[in-house]
Amino acid sequence: MMNVAIMGFGTIGSGVYEALEANRQLIAEKVGQEIAVKYVLDLRDFPGTPVEDKIVHDFSRIVEDDDISIVVETMGGLNPAYPFVKACLEAGKHVATSNKALVAAYGTELLAIAREKQVNFMFEASVGGGIPIIRPLYRCLMGEQILEITGILNGTTNFILTKMDKEGASFNGALKEAQDLGYAERNPEADVEGHDTCRKIAILTAMATGREVNYEDIYTEGITKITDTDFKYAEKMGTSVKLFGSSRMDGDTVHAWVAPLMIGKNHPLYSVNDVYNGIMVKGNMVGTTMFYGSGAGKLPTASAVVADIMEAATHPDSNVPLGWSSERLSIAPMESSSHRYFVRISGRYEASKDMVANHLGNIEVITLEGLNEYAVVTDRMGEAKFRQAAEGLAADLNQSYQEVLQTIRAEL
Amino acid sequence: MMNVAIMGFGTIGSGVYEALEANRQLIAEKVGQEIAVKYVLDLRDFPGTPVEDKIVHDFSRIVEDDDISIVVETMGGLNPAYPFVKACLEAGKHVATSNKALVAAYGTELLAIAREKQVNFMFEASVGGGIPIIRPLYRCLMGEQILEITGILNGTTNFILTKMDKEGASFNGALKEAQDLGYAERNPEADVEGHDTCRKIAILTAMATGREVNYEDIYTEGITKITDTDFKYAEKMGTSVKLFGSSRMDGDTVHAWVAPLMIGKNHPLYSVNDVYNGIMVKGNMVGTTMFYGSGAGKLPTASAVVADIMEAATHPDSNVPLGWSSERLSIAPMESSSHRYFVRISGRYEASKDMVANHLGNIEVITLEGLNEYAVVTDRMGEAKFRQAAEGLAADLNQSYQEVLQTIRAEL
Repeated sequence: MMNVAIMGFGTIGSGVYEALEANRQLIAEKVGQEIAVKYVLDLRDFPGTPVEDKIVHDFSRIVEDDDISIVVETMGGLNPAYPFVKACLEAGKHVATSNKALVAAYGTELLAIAREKQVNFMFEASVGGGIPIIRPLYRCLMGEQILEITGILNGTTNFILTKMDKEGASFNGALKEAQDLGYAERNPEADVEGHDTCRKIAILTAMATGREVNYEDIYTEGITKITDTDFKYAEKMGTSVKLFGSSRMDGDTVHAWVAPLMIGKNHPLYSVNDVYNGIMVKGNMVGTTMFYGSGAGKLPTASAVVADIMEAATHPDSNVPLGWSSERLSIAPMESSSHRYFVRISGRYEASKDMVANHLGNIEVITLEGLNEYAVVTDRMGEAKFRQAAEGLAADLNQSYQEVLQTIRAEL
Repeated sequence: MMNVAIMGFGTIGSGVYEALEANRQLIAEKVGQEIAVKYVLDLRDFPGTPVEDKIVHDFSRIVEDDDISIVVETMGGLNPAYPFVKACLEAGKHVATSNKALVAAYGTELLAIAREKQVNFMFEASVGGGIPIIRPLYRCLMGEQILEITGILNGTTNFILTKMDKEGASFNGALKEAQDLGYAERNPEADVEGHDTCRKIAILTAMATGREVNYEDIYTEGITKITDTDFKYAEKMGTSVKLFGSSRMDGDTVHAWVAPLMIGKNHPLYSVNDVYNGIMVKGNMVGTTMFYGSGAGKLPTASAVVADIMEAATHPDSNVPLGWSSERLSIAPMESSSHRYFVRISGRYEASKDMVANHLGNIEVITLEGLNEYAVVTDRMGEAKFRQAAEGLAADLNQSYQEVLQTIRAEL
């Protein structure tokens, strides 16, 4: 029998308990022994529940108990998650976490401790909820040179954008619905400003390259400026707008960014809707593969933690080679990336036709009946060049009391 | 250094050599030692190529060489692949194969020998080409009770059906194009009659349940009867027709079948086009996940073989628990499955309205201008009941010189 402690009995932590119970026999058969939850660390007591007699309030009970070989961290946040996880690894215990903030901020150090102590620090649940993506990167695609990872990595923003796309909702209306359904938090900043996606693409990039990524180096733009008008154009164009995290490996540097992207119907991630996530991985031999599933939710995320527990249980005395070294990866500045750009401009096209051609070059024009504005899509161009062009265009437009209303990167 | 022998230097075998060369350093780093190809077994000589001095014509050179720890089988077919693979496993060598016919026919026995000899018999490349699917089932979703696996598992037929769907091609025209492009063989029977898909869904079902599946027990219907007229209806209905292999676990029995299926735009596999494959896996905790990528092709398939080689190289002295036992799984007869049915009937709807309602119950009617026929889609009903109803309908229609022109199962 292997004893597990669960730290944090919120949605994910209680889901892990439930998943271990639901598939108890199957798990025991696959692992070769029973997996039992001995402790649940939480501030609350949960009287009258099956975990009543497992609750402990004192972390030392867990870290000092030699019977505990695997610790699950589902508290979230950095404090006390970071010192607790570090202490568990140092005490020679395997740790499985769903905490992307912890992995993005302290992954390098925690992976190094795990290697030194010959245990495992695992975090399948930190990206893509229940979708297997961390393990495919080190188990299934380990012979690949990964060229690109691009994904819809945040269920909350994907739900909001899907509502705006399919039902014509406003950003605020869709956000409120997401909050009412429990998909978005009262303070939705981490999701809607792209910070959550940023941490996840940082983790995936580090997994793909084997090198540390400072998530703060990644250009991050959220979805708060996307409007229902943008989706009216998208509908006419047969496109959609989704929040992407993307990483393209280019020798020793990496182009990584988080931003809303306008995509067409042929994009492999076009039909990833609602709270689902989809992650595209491009390897130099395998070409493009895609992984899709529930990006959040109690049991899907718990399923990923259980997979980590089972991997640790089948490698009890060894460190499974995964993760990254302390060598820092250089992230290229956003200015060096290149995209197409969807740009909305006030007034009539005829009035500013020459200015637009002058600054943005070759373009497609889209007009919507009843609106005193129009949109253009540029050819692919460097971000630095585009920013300069957009600045020049804005100055010229200003002369004729017109302005740039919106800019969204596009892959069409 | 670990020495590998490649048996069969056709498309896949030479792809494995190429992939091992292309990512040689990366592979050596991940595995901890170099992987070197020592022998290539083929009837041909390949003079002037890099494998010239590795070619052997005599299998005993491989099986009797203690330096060879991993053997790749990319010959295809059962003879001599089966005796060669068996002999290699019995000699204590790991085997990685891309040969679905071998795995479907002799997997149970070969897995048992591998377990006994503490080596590994691996076949990631046998299903889904480069898409990681075998390994996710035993590594990533090992804590899940798998409820359903449904996939587009054959690139050739998916290419043909996509041509028919998007370009209005006839079956014969699309097949010829697939043959000209090298996607379909001169004798395309294994693909277009569904036999290839049948072997693949049998392997996936055995992986998911841990029990042996006799692929001959699986109802198998190919795509040779699908016509361009069917796709005219599909276009009007906003649907498509694709060849599916499907397996739904229902306690101790399994509903498994291979057949063309009409699906709507919201089906997760709707946008899997051309030679791509997509495989949906439903687990009791994780919900629905989907894996997508190149279902065939030299380097993608080689990539899957390389992943197997690397797994064997990182577990040189142990058997990784995967596969299935000799306990036979019971496959429910097709009659006990249930579907909706798309049925085309000659003549005008008004002429046979009452007969159709009488036999098929509640239906949707679809008509196409200029055709002296119409189509209906039934509600979900048992296959046995439908067959009886369709027989009765055919008899009645016959009275008024009408007939059933087509039947395709539907999930709309």
